[in-house]
Amino acid sequence: MSVSAGAVSHERLCAWAYLSAVVEPPAPASYGFVAVHGAEIAADRIRSGNVPGAVVNETAARREHVCGAELLERAHRSGIRLVTPEHGEWPGSRSAFLEGATEVGLSGLAAPMALWCRGNVSPEAVSRSAVAVVGARAATGYGESCAAELGYELARSGTTVVSGAAYGIDGAAHRGALAAGGATAAILACGPELDYPAGHARLIARIAENGLVCSEYPPGTPPRKHRFLVRNRLIAAVTDGTVVVEAGLRSGAGNTATTTDTLGLPVMAVPGPVTSANSSGCHELIRSGKAVLVTGAPDVLELVSDIGTARAPEREPTPRPTDELDEVSKRVHDSLSPTRRRTVEQLVHETGITRKSVVTCLSALEISGFVRCDDRGWTRCDQ
Amino acid sequence: MSVSAGAVSHERLCAWAYLSAVVEPPAPASYGFVAVHGAEIAADRIRSGNVPGAVVNETAARREHVCGAELLERAHRSGIRLVTPEHGEWPGSRSAFLEGATEVGLSGLAAPMALWCRGNVSPEAVSRSAVAVVGARAATGYGESCAAELGYELARSGTTVVSGAAYGIDGAAHRGALAAGGATAAILACGPELDYPAGHARLIARIAENGLVCSEYPPGTPPRKHRFLVRNRLIAAVTDGTVVVEAGLRSGAGNTATTTDTLGLPVMAVPGPVTSANSSGCHELIRSGKAVLVTGAPDVLELVSDIGTARAPEREPTPRPTDELDEVSKRVHDSLSPTRRRTVEQLVHETGITRKSVVTCLSALEISGFVRCDDRGWTRCDQ
Repeated sequence: MSVSAGAVSHERLCAWAYLSAVVEPPAPASYGFVAVHGAEIAADRIRSGNVPGAVVNETAARREHVCGAELLERAHRSGIRLVTPEHGEWPGSRSAFLEGATEVGLSGLAAPMALWCRGNVSPEAVSRSAVAVVGARAATGYGESCAAELGYELARSGTTVVSGAAYGIDGAAHRGALAAGGATAAILACGPELDYPAGHARLIARIAENGLVCSEYPPGTPPRKHRFLVRNRLIAAVTDGTVVVEAGLRSGAGNTATTTDTLGLPVMAVPGPVTSANSSGCHELIRSGKAVLVTGAPDVLELVSDIGTARAPEREPTPRPTDELDEVSKRVHDSLSPTRRRTVEQLVHETGITRKSVVTCLSALEISGFVRCDDRGWTRCDQ
Repeated sequence: MSVSAGAVSHERLCAWAYLSAVVEPPAPASYGFVAVHGAEIAADRIRSGNVPGAVVNETAARREHVCGAELLERAHRSGIRLVTPEHGEWPGSRSAFLEGATEVGLSGLAAPMALWCRGNVSPEAVSRSAVAVVGARAATGYGESCAAELGYELARSGTTVVSGAAYGIDGAAHRGALAAGGATAAILACGPELDYPAGHARLIARIAENGLVCSEYPPGTPPRKHRFLVRNRLIAAVTDGTVVVEAGLRSGAGNTATTTDTLGLPVMAVPGPVTSANSSGCHELIRSGKAVLVTGAPDVLELVSDIGTARAPEREPTPRPTDELDEVSKRVHDSLSPTRRRTVEQLVHETGITRKSVVTCLSALEISGFVRCDDRGWTRCDQ
């Protein structure tokens, strides 16, 4: 499908709107049909039923009932624009992930026909540097605080935080990114004007004001269980990797993680208390090797960056002054007390080190200020 | 070094006691010297200084000051027996791990000369099926509860819980095993009669009554920092694997984990909140691939068992009745409400599935009791 930056005619946009609504995604056969024939011819032929059997199966149910112009009008009233593969805004390189997956026979991962968008940021800009942060709706306080912290730190580093606007982890990740004044994008499983879930209407509005709210479902499409799973493939494909913050053993986040892995992108998971059922999905992903354990944004950025561009800071413990001592000197130092004096003979017996070595060690330790002696014996200087 | 089950003469036991006290472990040269010449000849030659240079370095400091008979007498008064490589009680196959490590040049991992033991269980019996549970002294309530639970469940499964009797994770693991009425063993970094730390005197006595308290250090040896690190190699070598429950970035538990890994045995770590510094060592072990994430005893038993003898129960989420439905039937089921009736035409448009398929699905779903219909339309039966 050719990508050009120019404007798309109203007729052609109507054809794209029709195509986006006539199918229930994923629709691999129709997607391929449009790629071959172009939007307008494909729309005409689908409307008249003059299409191959696989396309009939994906389009027969709605072909006579959808009107592209009406959908565009409705979208326009809600401040929603339609972004198609012909727009410069299209996340072409990321949508290619899904095209590749479809070509190897993963038809459930077909690319979206088009994207209905709210907000000034383009899907293409979002996809340039983005991380998905996903997880349980019924999250714990611990999970929400991890998600908010991750959202904040990722956004602060210039990474777009992509999630699904759900309660729990999704909402906390979006809020963290907004708090950092950074970019965040919500991909919905219903029409982008629907503010689902209702309790997140204000949050979704803020995301649209500062980033992007988008959906492959046209205005008016209600959320349905299977649409969340279908939507999850877009969250995985548009980002450079997926972080699961909290998830039970059976979860939508686990589904996003599987898709991320199928697409060859890094899957990450945040650990938590082993006593928390909300972390059991994360632990299973890590234990089975499907996800890499991450404890914060530096770990995530290291994994999603090209090699060498971002390295998590080394987790070096604080050095101690005695670190530089050799094993024998450490043993002598160790056998001294800060208060009770010890003779060389006592140290020889205590350490099991020869008299000559003990004397040599003590001299070197005294010069470095680790030990001191007076006429009654040796003591340790605590530093 | 030959292993026989018979009694060892008092003279020879005195030689072993002398050898165990004359060196500061690890003492690879002396260990090798004893293996070649036998305990009595080796002891005589060490006492007179008639030994190779490497053995001189390990023995010159104490060779004139140690008396094996006195040590045995002192041990006897404290209810401590000396177990040597000549006893049937010797954990021969496990001590071989350390001999192997020494042979490949890891002289810091030399096998112990002998073991001073309190309690009726033999080191050999301990080593038959044992897991090390180790971690921070300044543990959190979360860590202690994980360690106690692990200790309890491992002991209940017939596995000996081995640790170092320290405050925090060690103590909790021993207590868990004792609570299960199972076997537990403490390996100390000081003379085995010393009840270190003092606050664990009662716990150590209970371990000795129900299991084993042992040390390579003869009675009277005080604990020293380096002795804890040296002791840790025995905890690693005598067990089938090491679980780190809580550890900071710099910890003795991390040292035990490294030794376990060097010996080719499984290293496991329990995750925790990413906000807890006490879990950061565990997370780093998992993240770097040095340890496998474990959430409880079933995970541990699966990893330390011979393949196939113990499998962690599958973490299968609870199945739902709709799991058996195909994707198309799920989509139809999903679009129905338990209360509001829908017509076939509404379902066709809502799902994007052809009329023929919708009707076929509805019939099958009705027979299975998933949906019902009356003259006004179709509803979902919630199960």
